[in-house]
Amino acid sequence: MLVDVELAKSYRLLNHGPTVLVSSAAEGRQNVMAAAWAMPLDFDPPKVLVVIDKSTYSRELIEASGEFILNVPCRAQAAQVVQVGSESGRGADKFAASGLEPLPARIVAAPRVAGCIGYLECRVVPEPHNQQRYDLFIGEVVAAQADDAVFRAGHWHFEDADPARRSLHYIAGGHFFATGEAFSVA
Amino acid sequence: MLVDVELAKSYRLLNHGPTVLVSSAAEGRQNVMAAAWAMPLDFDPPKVLVVIDKSTYSRELIEASGEFILNVPCRAQAAQVVQVGSESGRGADKFAASGLEPLPARIVAAPRVAGCIGYLECRVVPEPHNQQRYDLFIGEVVAAQADDAVFRAGHWHFEDADPARRSLHYIAGGHFFATGEAFSVA
Repeated sequence: MLVDVELAKSYRLLNHGPTVLVSSAAEGRQNVMAAAWAMPLDFDPPKVLVVIDKSTYSRELIEASGEFILNVPCRAQAAQVVQVGSESGRGADKFAASGLEPLPARIVAAPRVAGCIGYLECRVVPEPHNQQRYDLFIGEVVAAQADDAVFRAGHWHFEDADPARRSLHYIAGGHFFATGEAFSVA
Repeated sequence: MLVDVELAKSYRLLNHGPTVLVSSAAEGRQNVMAAAWAMPLDFDPPKVLVVIDKSTYSRELIEASGEFILNVPCRAQAAQVVQVGSESGRGADKFAASGLEPLPARIVAAPRVAGCIGYLECRVVPEPHNQQRYDLFIGEVVAAQADDAVFRAGHWHFEDADPARRSLHYIAGGHFFATGEAFSVA
């Protein structure tokens, strides 16, 4: 079941470095792409960073709408993550092509991607120099949700869940790591 | 054995989102801190991002020297990662306190941290607005090395190595994930 995540703890959805899906919408169009280069930037108000190349269709939609969602996909979705990370959404509906399903989000107009384990709805903090020079976008997190089968009370709990619901860490060429064993040090 | 990593493939040391140790030196002083918020920014020339809080001693050394190293620690070093992520190096030698050993790096004056599995030697790309407003630093990678027991020919190979040599993904409160199972999709 999808539950709200306290904004001040929303960074924990990204702190361990998972690969994300970036979803966006503008003027009746929508898209989804994969991004390994996303991370938290600040706790409160929570902010995130994501690199969105100038060549992408998502870039157009994000610049037009000022919004995006970072969706945290799981191992069950790995093939779709590679697919939407390889093809362009320009002239093709990547949701339809990949089988990923767009669903309404809480606050932003961009759709969230069904079946993901975490969601960070973001509004762009305009930084034109970073966007132009480095393809780097800053988003303020305005809503966060997670699947309580794997994230509860501010912590991931993969240990007692289906391994197919673990988050992913992309490397290159279709190769991933699943998020591995949890452990603690005093 | 430590081997050079082709600069164009150095992003792969960070692409899966591991927690890093940031080492720095200036005017005969040196320090090491943990950072979960580091990632690649560009392939060629390779650049990285890292968030370095204004309150840290490392921030002083990095601003003074214009250099830092992102060291990729392994599970065997987890307790030390937490220690150097919790204490300040101001007035205390965190290398001595933690038992982490500073060793000479290839190009920059900052020391690398012995026993890590990857190293990205970086020169700061000055962006005063990002540094002041977001504590965000951009580094150009000028040298990269990795332990060939776990990284060979541009790829991590944790599957046939000691589990204590796997990279780490920090969450909060001393809790980590180890890098998990490798898998591929077509």
